[in-house]
Amino acid sequence: MSTLIKNGRIVTAADDFVADVLIEDGRIAAIGHNLAAGNGLETHDAGGLLVLPGGIDVHTHLDSESATSHTVDTFASGGRAAAFGGTTTVVDFCNQIRGGSLLAGFEAWRRRAECTPIDVGAHMIVVDFGPSTAAEMERLMTGEGVTSFKLFTAYPGALMVDDGTLLQAMRAAGRHGGQISVHCENGHIIQMLVGEAVAAGNLAPRHHMLTRPPLAEGEATQRVIALAEVTGTPLYIVHLSARQSLEAVAEARRRGLAVHAETCTHYLFLTDAEYDRPGFEGAKVIMSPPLRAAEHVEALWRGIAAGDLSVVSTDHCPYTFAAEPYGAKHSKRAGGEAFHKVPNGAPGIEERLHVLYSGGVATGRLSASRFVELTATAPAKLFGLYPKKGTIAVGSDADLVLLDPEARWTIRAADGHGRMDYSLFEGFEATGRIKKVFLRGEMIVEGDTWLGREGGGQFIARGPSGSL
Amino acid sequence: MSTLIKNGRIVTAADDFVADVLIEDGRIAAIGHNLAAGNGLETHDAGGLLVLPGGIDVHTHLDSESATSHTVDTFASGGRAAAFGGTTTVVDFCNQIRGGSLLAGFEAWRRRAECTPIDVGAHMIVVDFGPSTAAEMERLMTGEGVTSFKLFTAYPGALMVDDGTLLQAMRAAGRHGGQISVHCENGHIIQMLVGEAVAAGNLAPRHHMLTRPPLAEGEATQRVIALAEVTGTPLYIVHLSARQSLEAVAEARRRGLAVHAETCTHYLFLTDAEYDRPGFEGAKVIMSPPLRAAEHVEALWRGIAAGDLSVVSTDHCPYTFAAEPYGAKHSKRAGGEAFHKVPNGAPGIEERLHVLYSGGVATGRLSASRFVELTATAPAKLFGLYPKKGTIAVGSDADLVLLDPEARWTIRAADGHGRMDYSLFEGFEATGRIKKVFLRGEMIVEGDTWLGREGGGQFIARGPSGSL
Amino acid sequence: MSTLIKNGRIVTAADDFVADVLIEDGRIAAIGHNLAAGNGLETHDAGGLLVLPGGIDVHTHLDSESATSHTVDTFASGGRAAAFGGTTTVVDFCNQIRGGSLLAGFEAWRRRAECTPIDVGAHMIVVDFGPSTAAEMERLMTGEGVTSFKLFTAYPGALMVDDGTLLQAMRAAGRHGGQISVHCENGHIIQMLVGEAVAAGNLAPRHHMLTRPPLAEGEATQRVIALAEVTGTPLYIVHLSARQSLEAVAEARRRGLAVHAETCTHYLFLTDAEYDRPGFEGAKVIMSPPLRAAEHVEALWRGIAAGDLSVVSTDHCPYTFAAEPYGAKHSKRAGGEAFHKVPNGAPGIEERLHVLYSGGVATGRLSASRFVELTATAPAKLFGLYPKKGTIAVGSDADLVLLDPEARWTIRAADGHGRMDYSLFEGFEATGRIKKVFLRGEMIVEGDTWLGREGGGQFIARGPSGSL
Amino acid sequence: MSTLIKNGRIVTAADDFVADVLIEDGRIAAIGHNLAAGNGLETHDAGGLLVLPGGIDVHTHLDSESATSHTVDTFASGGRAAAFGGTTTVVDFCNQIRGGSLLAGFEAWRRRAECTPIDVGAHMIVVDFGPSTAAEMERLMTGEGVTSFKLFTAYPGALMVDDGTLLQAMRAAGRHGGQISVHCENGHIIQMLVGEAVAAGNLAPRHHMLTRPPLAEGEATQRVIALAEVTGTPLYIVHLSARQSLEAVAEARRRGLAVHAETCTHYLFLTDAEYDRPGFEGAKVIMSPPLRAAEHVEALWRGIAAGDLSVVSTDHCPYTFAAEPYGAKHSKRAGGEAFHKVPNGAPGIEERLHVLYSGGVATGRLSASRFVELTATAPAKLFGLYPKKGTIAVGSDADLVLLDPEARWTIRAADGHGRMDYSLFEGFEATGRIKKVFLRGEMIVEGDTWLGREGGGQFIARGPSGSL
Repeated sequence: MSTLIKNGRIVTAADDFVADVLIEDGRIAAIGHNLAAGNGLETHDAGGLLVLPGGIDVHTHLDSESATSHTVDTFASGGRAAAFGGTTTVVDFCNQIRGGSLLAGFEAWRRRAECTPIDVGAHMIVVDFGPSTAAEMERLMTGEGVTSFKLFTAYPGALMVDDGTLLQAMRAAGRHGGQISVHCENGHIIQMLVGEAVAAGNLAPRHHMLTRPPLAEGEATQRVIALAEVTGTPLYIVHLSARQSLEAVAEARRRGLAVHAETCTHYLFLTDAEYDRPGFEGAKVIMSPPLRAAEHVEALWRGIAAGDLSVVSTDHCPYTFAAEPYGAKHSKRAGGEAFHKVPNGAPGIEERLHVLYSGGVATGRLSASRFVELTATAPAKLFGLYPKKGTIAVGSDADLVLLDPEARWTIRAADGHGRMDYSLFEGFEATGRIKKVFLRGEMIVEGDTWLGREGGGQFIARGPSGSL
Repeated sequence: MSTLIKNGRIVTAADDFVADVLIEDGRIAAIGHNLAAGNGLETHDAGGLLVLPGGIDVHTHLDSESATSHTVDTFASGGRAAAFGGTTTVVDFCNQIRGGSLLAGFEAWRRRAECTPIDVGAHMIVVDFGPSTAAEMERLMTGEGVTSFKLFTAYPGALMVDDGTLLQAMRAAGRHGGQISVHCENGHIIQMLVGEAVAAGNLAPRHHMLTRPPLAEGEATQRVIALAEVTGTPLYIVHLSARQSLEAVAEARRRGLAVHAETCTHYLFLTDAEYDRPGFEGAKVIMSPPLRAAEHVEALWRGIAAGDLSVVSTDHCPYTFAAEPYGAKHSKRAGGEAFHKVPNGAPGIEERLHVLYSGGVATGRLSASRFVELTATAPAKLFGLYPKKGTIAVGSDADLVLLDPEARWTIRAADGHGRMDYSLFEGFEATGRIKKVFLRGEMIVEGDTWLGREGGGQFIARGPSGSL
Repeated sequence: MSTLIKNGRIVTAADDFVADVLIEDGRIAAIGHNLAAGNGLETHDAGGLLVLPGGIDVHTHLDSESATSHTVDTFASGGRAAAFGGTTTVVDFCNQIRGGSLLAGFEAWRRRAECTPIDVGAHMIVVDFGPSTAAEMERLMTGEGVTSFKLFTAYPGALMVDDGTLLQAMRAAGRHGGQISVHCENGHIIQMLVGEAVAAGNLAPRHHMLTRPPLAEGEATQRVIALAEVTGTPLYIVHLSARQSLEAVAEARRRGLAVHAETCTHYLFLTDAEYDRPGFEGAKVIMSPPLRAAEHVEALWRGIAAGDLSVVSTDHCPYTFAAEPYGAKHSKRAGGEAFHKVPNGAPGIEERLHVLYSGGVATGRLSASRFVELTATAPAKLFGLYPKKGTIAVGSDADLVLLDPEARWTIRAADGHGRMDYSLFEGFEATGRIKKVFLRGEMIVEGDTWLGREGGGQFIARGPSGSL
Repeated sequence: MSTLIKNGRIVTAADDFVADVLIEDGRIAAIGHNLAAGNGLETHDAGGLLVLPGGIDVHTHLDSESATSHTVDTFASGGRAAAFGGTTTVVDFCNQIRGGSLLAGFEAWRRRAECTPIDVGAHMIVVDFGPSTAAEMERLMTGEGVTSFKLFTAYPGALMVDDGTLLQAMRAAGRHGGQISVHCENGHIIQMLVGEAVAAGNLAPRHHMLTRPPLAEGEATQRVIALAEVTGTPLYIVHLSARQSLEAVAEARRRGLAVHAETCTHYLFLTDAEYDRPGFEGAKVIMSPPLRAAEHVEALWRGIAAGDLSVVSTDHCPYTFAAEPYGAKHSKRAGGEAFHKVPNGAPGIEERLHVLYSGGVATGRLSASRFVELTATAPAKLFGLYPKKGTIAVGSDADLVLLDPEARWTIRAADGHGRMDYSLFEGFEATGRIKKVFLRGEMIVEGDTWLGREGGGQFIARGPSGSL
């Protein structure tokens, strides 16, 4: 079966031109003027619309359970929300249980992900490094298409690893072209500040932000870059939010190191003023790192312009604000109202492309090509999904998004397609709206209509990290 | 008439895939698998070959005459050499005579350029700023497609302008989306050092290098960036060669300024050790800025990796080493053998793509896409040639280069196709060789055979500078 | 004749201890406990008081006339004000008339300075560089004790010199251990902005500040440092006011260059909010560089802490606010009320030590020793006055200041001792007040009483610049 | 009893002048010209000699025992060697046993130090932080005059602490004006590299250097500075050796943090070429951090010039090269010849002033005042010994060194006065030689004659860290 998308303004990370796209067998077969419409050809008129590669979100936590909390979106609900937001592939995190097997964590994740309506890949979180860990990492990289590993310098006693573990993981990853991603915040600094705040009775949500200062992030970023320099391993800094971290990344890149960084939509559009919301409302923005002061937001935009930030992801880690209907464990109330007991995380999987297009491209801050690079091409290349994913090129998967650049509308959580009951961008006046979304040639979103299906997505075995 | 290029590995600044390219009316009509070969279709098999966008060299001095010297390549000979080297468009410099009209300089250049066998655009060099200069700049930008202006901080008494002139030119350019390019070396510093060297009887070619220290370039670069920051004008630093300048550009980009920079092939592959050649041989590398010590060469490669350098051009400014057969004025001997009398400039228009492919892509330092970006897409975007030029996209001019990535050969000036009697890269063992070159769909180079014709090139009226 | 100062807290740039000081023949003869009081010994009880070396102000413009204006303080009135403020030596500027002789300028200055009641030295301002300039500089350095030369990168058409002149002056100074001081602001940038402001009818005092942006100062500072690096000449940046300039100085010092900088009292205590004063009141703070935003003020304090700023001077350049009684040419009204016609300059010679002690030492930002270093020892060393001046050491001139660290009082222009009718620090609540001032052992100030005399000061032939 | 030192050239951190010094009761009573020589006055002619404050070495490890090694110098032998080298006070390290009491460690150290012939103070090394540690630190600071604490980021499993411990120590120290000193090298990086080198059979001394790269030091320095910034505690970086660390310190100081750093004599005069010595000879330079490449040495000298390095100490940690006569445990052979088994440490207590004077002052790189500041005044101020120690001022202890600036001689370990059998500076051709040394007014060294006595030194209870 073939599909023809006519007269769209096709945008890749390099190019921007009007043409038709012919899809055959789920892949792009041709791009050209006046491509012939044959028999049985499904045709979509994209006149006046942008044709973008399907978004790739390399930082999500779907159906992710800990001892005390559990993200509310399943792969089914989260994947549907992603699709309505123009994202056709996510790379999600699977967890090692401390002392447990990586492969066991990966397999449990595979089962949870079976219902996905969009394509998915997996990063592996490593929380400790035992005698078999290196061998398991090799197996994941060479046998399972899991080629990236995430470690934490934060959350002592839970996810935090020391520099020795980071070095071991880097060495193990480096032997097979794997990549190391790191959540960079100095857990010791935060632990001390949290302890002092709690001791002083400072429990309101804003103390989440005050106890995670930018320099704790900057320090960890510099340190992890040094470890990567010693081992020569490609490094990816997740959810970079602070000027200090950005400067560390920029400096590393100036020295020629293979260091890349992502920021998230919310760090580009929201400031720490959100923590002044009344009562427990501030819990909605309890994520780590926290939202930052305006100087950091401006720095991030400059980092995008200068190329020091390569990816915009979401860190979609959804907990409802209300305990109902999914239960307290799926909500911000899982641990009570003291800031340090609130599950860390915020939603964004559905809003990413709309917010960044509207606030970036429509305002002139980003070219459409740079937007595509940040949301699809660069994540695909850095995480071994390219050229299958991340671009509009002959032979690539026909993951396509048709966006009307003139449409104006308002983001409302109530209109969302996942399970979340709030949005970080409630009331955001957006310019540009997605009309249709195709996954491997199949239309899964048409206006407000969901055409996808649970289990319709595929697990993507990824290759090694490539260059941009 | 239509042409089909089959099964090539198509490389753009973002993508890299195997497909066919269909050319109609000189433009790219379609890219796809198994594009049908119809009647009268000229077909080229590109199996195993790279299909690259035609190179764009935005820094050439063809048929350029001063009181004492005259570059030896005409547009005919230089354009032919360029084409054999895979470059299908050059943006050349036309000169204002001090106190004279810009338009007069441009018109004289147009006449000289009529014989070009490849496409050409023009930058305008401004050496002084009189009452009518702003109006002439407006006319050039809005009426003639000359949207970039070059000024010099070097060569006091000749080309050098003071900061006041730079500011006036920036203001005038900025009103119509024009761009300012600057040759950044502090002319006063160099004048003093040259005077002292000459007074001391130090006349050998290496004193050319010793009297143009990196800090003279770094200072001027920082200064010009400050001027551009005041005026808000897009700035392009030509032939950046020194670590200090690179740091200034990097810092400006980190602060969000619209500053871009090019380096040239020779600064990436040669060091100041070349000035130790015996006798007058060192005159072959008398160009400004001079070749630099190895630490600078390494810095430039890091600058390319980090995105602080956007373009690799040639500064092709050819003077033969021998006074014959074109006459002394066309040679390095135009002013005698004292270093400060030797015409500044060196050739490179034919070698650029081959040297950079071989030393960059074949060695793994650059991806093929980054190579295309540096040599075609970025110059096209920054100088208002895009999307007509600089990429392989539907609707763009079919300026295409077919390159065999496996071919090994040796660069020899004697095998060149222009008028030069020496090459900076004599004896360079190259990997990768151009097989065919197309200009607007017409094959102008096939192996060693020249199929182009004088006057076959077009003057390209350029638009304003775009973003990358 | 001998004088004994008993039990004071003696502060030098290194030390801080209680002892007696014995003065003989105008010099310090001994420092010790229980120094014997002999016959004919004049004794001063300094119990509870600080004993400081007399302040040295290396940046004053006394009795300085241009075509359109004339500073209001003579050496008599300015010297008296200085003395009441604890300053016993000034190094003032003598001017070259464009095209004229340096020596003529120096001699005219010597005549004007004859009436000085405190000690004086001279810097020579160079505005152009003719065939005899180098020889005149040599004569001044080796024969007259004028070992520092000031040039301007600002005021095109008046004081501004180009880089070539700066280089020539540096070379000439360097041959005899001379130092180059530079007023660093890019005159071309300012000229353009002033022209645009005037054309737009923006004539109020605040436009003085808006047309002299920090980056114009930063650019010139970086440039002049590069010139000094080429020539290897010691460089002194006068009245540094901007973060950007400070960063340039800091970076130069990190690279090991002999670069020092001063800031002035007002840049440490006042911000650009002063330009919002109503009506023409803002003219009181029209000096160049202008007062800066708070971020710059904070940067300067950090620069003092880090050692990147070595001296605090005044740039005392006094014009009364009222045209009477000294005449309009001596006032801010010399050229009318448009900002660009107002004479540039502000007073401060009497306030410096009091303001810096109060706002620096009394607040804990500076140690008493660092205060002495900034106001006396460092200027003495950098300008060849040490060890004769600038410290309390055996053999040094007995220029001493007795300050009561507990006294609280309010600065009022009406209480000043020069000719000025306004103070930048009107109403400043000061902690610490000078009780007695000695010049070469002779008490010239006692409380409110003036004991000095016109002509009582000496011209000090200075040696070469020393290290700190 | 009184002593008079006549006509010496007295050098302080600020001043440099010729005068007499009168000593009474072990303190400086007066400084002046022609101080009267009374009855019973011991008089020393210092004509032509420098009179310097006694050196203060704030980094020594005397009589320091671990499970496997024991430094060879006792307080008796080390103090004697120090005195012959012009050092009259050392601040030595006492150790906490892991899990043990700080006070117990201090008291054991006090007993070992009783035999000292020069004055001593103590820093406390903290290796873990238990429930009573904060209280013990308070007791040491407020009751014992131990106001500085040292922690290690290196030596995992032995001395290394994690960031949490560093933060706790900083908080505890900060409450009573204490200072934290840190040995900054990333122990995890080194542990990995050592493990890999050993596994590869690379056991020669040079692998000590190769497994402790500059970036491991730079990383730890940046990290510890971040921790100090969070807690607001004054920080002192010991034995800084690498450009990267220096840049971190410089940047911190530019931001206004209370961070100071020392380097050691050997890092200023020796490079990593020393590790190429044949056989086990390289073990003589096994200290941590290791000697560095020349670029680091040059950076350190620039750091001294720019004020980013405040102190030059020795890290005197002596192990003989031969196992005899003090036994293998006191020698470099304590653990065999594999580099990672060799006790870390090198001697220098006797050479410091001679080497730094000769290589710094006599060569013109340092002024005599800066030399005094680096070796006496700054350490005294930073470690709460000032004004009792560290300067030549009325009321200060008469710890004085008379140095002949013209004497030329050769440093030989065989001529040393401690127990060491080798010197890092064997064969160093020195300019300047110490003639006499006074401790609290008592001559303890006269030429080659030892006049001091065991137990003649005092323990100095130190105050809080002061500013420079």
